[in-house]
Amino acid sequence: MEKSILNNIDSPLDLRKLSRKKLPVLAKELRKFIIDIVATKEGHLGASLGVVELTIALHYAFNTPDDLLVWDVGHQAYGHKILTGRRDIFDTNRQLHGLSGFPKRSESEYDTFGVGHSSTSISAALGMAIASNLKGEYSKQHIAVVGDASIASGMAFEGLNHAGVSKANLLVILNDNAIGIDPSVGALKQYLTKAKVGHKPQQDNIIEALNFNYFGPVDGHDIEGLLKAFEELKKIQGPKFLHVITTKGKGLQKAEEDQVKYHAPGKFVADTGELLPSISAGLPLKYQDVFGLTLVDLARKNEKIIGITPAMPTGSSLKYMMDAFPERAFDVGIAEQHAVTLSAGMATQGFIVYCAIYSTFLQRAYDQVIHDVAIQNLPVIFCLDRAGLVGEDGATHHGIFDIAYLRCVPNLIIAAPRDEVELRNLLYTAQIDLKHPIAIRYPRGRGVRLDWKQEFKELEIGKGELLLEGTEVAVISLGTIAENVKLAIASIEAKDKVAHYDAGFVKPLDEALLHELFSKFKKVITVEEGAISGGFGSAILEFAAKHNYSSKIKCLGIPDQFIEQGNMKELYEIVKLDVTSIAHTINVFLK
Amino acid sequence: MEKSILNNIDSPLDLRKLSRKKLPVLAKELRKFIIDIVATKEGHLGASLGVVELTIALHYAFNTPDDLLVWDVGHQAYGHKILTGRRDIFDTNRQLHGLSGFPKRSESEYDTFGVGHSSTSISAALGMAIASNLKGEYSKQHIAVVGDASIASGMAFEGLNHAGVSKANLLVILNDNAIGIDPSVGALKQYLTKAKVGHKPQQDNIIEALNFNYFGPVDGHDIEGLLKAFEELKKIQGPKFLHVITTKGKGLQKAEEDQVKYHAPGKFVADTGELLPSISAGLPLKYQDVFGLTLVDLARKNEKIIGITPAMPTGSSLKYMMDAFPERAFDVGIAEQHAVTLSAGMATQGFIVYCAIYSTFLQRAYDQVIHDVAIQNLPVIFCLDRAGLVGEDGATHHGIFDIAYLRCVPNLIIAAPRDEVELRNLLYTAQIDLKHPIAIRYPRGRGVRLDWKQEFKELEIGKGELLLEGTEVAVISLGTIAENVKLAIASIEAKDKVAHYDAGFVKPLDEALLHELFSKFKKVITVEEGAISGGFGSAILEFAAKHNYSSKIKCLGIPDQFIEQGNMKELYEIVKLDVTSIAHTINVFLK
Repeated sequence: MEKSILNNIDSPLDLRKLSRKKLPVLAKELRKFIIDIVATKEGHLGASLGVVELTIALHYAFNTPDDLLVWDVGHQAYGHKILTGRRDIFDTNRQLHGLSGFPKRSESEYDTFGVGHSSTSISAALGMAIASNLKGEYSKQHIAVVGDASIASGMAFEGLNHAGVSKANLLVILNDNAIGIDPSVGALKQYLTKAKVGHKPQQDNIIEALNFNYFGPVDGHDIEGLLKAFEELKKIQGPKFLHVITTKGKGLQKAEEDQVKYHAPGKFVADTGELLPSISAGLPLKYQDVFGLTLVDLARKNEKIIGITPAMPTGSSLKYMMDAFPERAFDVGIAEQHAVTLSAGMATQGFIVYCAIYSTFLQRAYDQVIHDVAIQNLPVIFCLDRAGLVGEDGATHHGIFDIAYLRCVPNLIIAAPRDEVELRNLLYTAQIDLKHPIAIRYPRGRGVRLDWKQEFKELEIGKGELLLEGTEVAVISLGTIAENVKLAIASIEAKDKVAHYDAGFVKPLDEALLHELFSKFKKVITVEEGAISGGFGSAILEFAAKHNYSSKIKCLGIPDQFIEQGNMKELYEIVKLDVTSIAHTINVFLK
Repeated sequence: MEKSILNNIDSPLDLRKLSRKKLPVLAKELRKFIIDIVATKEGHLGASLGVVELTIALHYAFNTPDDLLVWDVGHQAYGHKILTGRRDIFDTNRQLHGLSGFPKRSESEYDTFGVGHSSTSISAALGMAIASNLKGEYSKQHIAVVGDASIASGMAFEGLNHAGVSKANLLVILNDNAIGIDPSVGALKQYLTKAKVGHKPQQDNIIEALNFNYFGPVDGHDIEGLLKAFEELKKIQGPKFLHVITTKGKGLQKAEEDQVKYHAPGKFVADTGELLPSISAGLPLKYQDVFGLTLVDLARKNEKIIGITPAMPTGSSLKYMMDAFPERAFDVGIAEQHAVTLSAGMATQGFIVYCAIYSTFLQRAYDQVIHDVAIQNLPVIFCLDRAGLVGEDGATHHGIFDIAYLRCVPNLIIAAPRDEVELRNLLYTAQIDLKHPIAIRYPRGRGVRLDWKQEFKELEIGKGELLLEGTEVAVISLGTIAENVKLAIASIEAKDKVAHYDAGFVKPLDEALLHELFSKFKKVITVEEGAISGGFGSAILEFAAKHNYSSKIKCLGIPDQFIEQGNMKELYEIVKLDVTSIAHTINVFLK
């Protein structure tokens, strides 16, 4: 490493001092740097490897940070972070108080727009470009780097549609690698795939129809070619579009060969790419797999069952059903809005639709949940994976708002299973004859039981459960945080004084159980892995107020702030939902 | 009318018995029928007049309701309602317990999908079409009728993008009249405008690029031409697209000439289209105009101010700023997601962006509020018009969820002005140096003060106000419902016992005021024009629980159900927020 170029790049200013012929060497070093760190520290790999040359060329050709560069989604931005002054702390990536795994405004002036969810870059960069025009800064460049999976989202189209009639100095770079986390889908993707380097898809292309100057496709691994394109593009005012073809995972053979697995591969051998065995033997399954495998069981018995995912077949484990029943399982791409209303349309025809969306991404389809599903009371089954804290992905990905934003929606059932068996039985119950939409929220990561695959049992909707008798304080928990509550109670001295209830549902509440609870206990603690403001605890407060119960109620959950990244243990401690904190709260409340 | 054809059409079966040459006569009658009723009963006019021929042709050519017809937005569906068995009750349109102003599943089997917000039809119809394929019903037709303003929304694009790779028997009909409520905008609109009847925009068009069979454009007022096109289209399996050119307001000269005004013109003379004078002299302004005019005042003094609306320049009154400062005010079309992230992008460059969106439509941009604005703490100013009940537009349009869905979002300030002066001062205060995003919610309709245009005064964020002293019960209201509370208190005998506070803000709460209130009062009533579940009252319950106040708290607001259409008086009575009901609640609580 003594002659490393990368080691001397502390900012793009250093980069721009290099001669052009050194850039491919730098690309090699940067790629190795990313591989070496991600191999041991984990994180997103394939996307950043694919844009190594593009990243170098962008910072070389454009005058960042004065020229404004917006990365879509953001897990492609590792190279960008390393070249913009964060090389020496890049090994803190995705750790508590470390670098964010995504661009983040508070981290660097080179991170012009924070991101995590996809398809926002065109709108954001257009806003910046219009702002520059208003300031009279006409030579300033504004660049959005968007993937082909992200550009298929409606939001990206909205941005293009506006940009096309603006005079904004906007360059949209399409990083076309034919894959998001899973392979890209949709008609636009098919259309783009017709493009080969040097050949546009058609003379009059879809992008030009939207008033953009279209350039490309160019080889995204040819720095010289990219630089030439940028030089030309800089001279053109107004909206323009550069189609760049790249290979996700470029430079690490195994990552190129299995792009889905190497999106975020966990630990691996840096030299070979060989994955290190993750220790899963003897551990409970992930909740997503309990969902995915159970859905296959149910679909086998009930031919009315349909599965839908917006671009998360692997992440949601809907892939199991896509393999088993390809005609009844759909990946619709990054299109949450469409996914929900498509589900509603199918539901009108008597199908039972499981719409699997991460809690944080359902925010993208909130209106569709209300307007297309709930108002019409269509029995769509929303499977909200990654509900609660999600760890290293951080603030943009925590699924902590769903309870609050869904609780106000009439007709909707909201369930939160305590463990894998409950999840499985809820999935079973939901397809019997529900007559209402339902949202079932469950967390990222592994469950707590090895015996998850039991006989199906129909659950009563809106039914909670007394888990542990007690005399003075009642703790009522929602969902899988029950496990921490259980351990907390077991750890305290006066454990006999503490009862533990599992609410089971946010809506409808188990009113009989709550009347019993409030009649018996003068002190009640609610525990949920979601925002306190308007959440489950707040539903309990509303119940108590409505029925004139005067018990003291303490609500535990996520406080009113965005929670950064960290491992789950750290994050639980920060929000005081770890076993020790819960035990402490109970003890204080007991006194 | 004795020889009326329309009077004998009780369902599309009757329609299909007519000879083709009678259809233009029917069109004339149907158009007159719509005009006559809307002239006296009010409602949406232009959109339905524009699709009279299309509606007749669709029901004539297709086997509705077995073939599934989905109307986008829905205010174009009056003719559809009249021809499908609802002619004789059409005069109850938009009234309490009457016909909905939009298609509604519970109203008729011909209304296949409820609607009110735009751009949902393609997703819904695609869901139905995929369902039919799974059932083996391959000859069934599925038709989405979408306007050119609606197709520019990202959601519609998501639907097209999926449909293009499906084998679904889907016909998308583009009703291209170059206008939504206001004139359509965007690059797609420009592109479509290049099409003339008989001439596609280009050989390889944008729709064909998405794998659709493209037909048209055809004249949407030529029934014979439409029928011929439908016959041809019926024979083609898979996704296909018919571009139809129509004139909004067709057949009523004044409505054709002023399409914006005649979208929903109020009462008018049926024969001439002449608008009846609405009585506004001496009445307070509408809140939207207080917003729109104030923004012009502010923009005149502060050149950093920008205004953005997604397709509601008239409805939100941003048009005043668009006229006064066209370079700083933007109508981005039906693209709420883009509107919000565009605002965020501009805010990063130091601009002060007023993003005016109806409460119900902000649901479409919920993720962008969280992910692009609040996480980054960008001081975007959301002006939420139509917050609360909206009257005749009904369940799809009431703005009753915003308090609950925004309250859980960290960093966000949520304000609800009590009257026009407060609104004006909030708009003024928001542009001084806020450092946080803010949502300012205000209702549809007129305010309560004639003296709204006062000197600007900076308000303290998070500050409430004691409006009326009292001894036993404290009523704390949020926003303009304060007026009903004021009247209610004035009407009761023991009025001296009732204090009235104005909360001013949902977030941050005025903690000092609340401590004072809870220290003094054992009985507290919260009043808001929003969903009770998770709403403002629930914030007060959380505050009281956190600080161990044991006062009895009663929360008034919108109950956990969708509220249908009706006039405001009727709706207030239904949700018990009318003066009499509030007075009654206070009286009962006093005892």
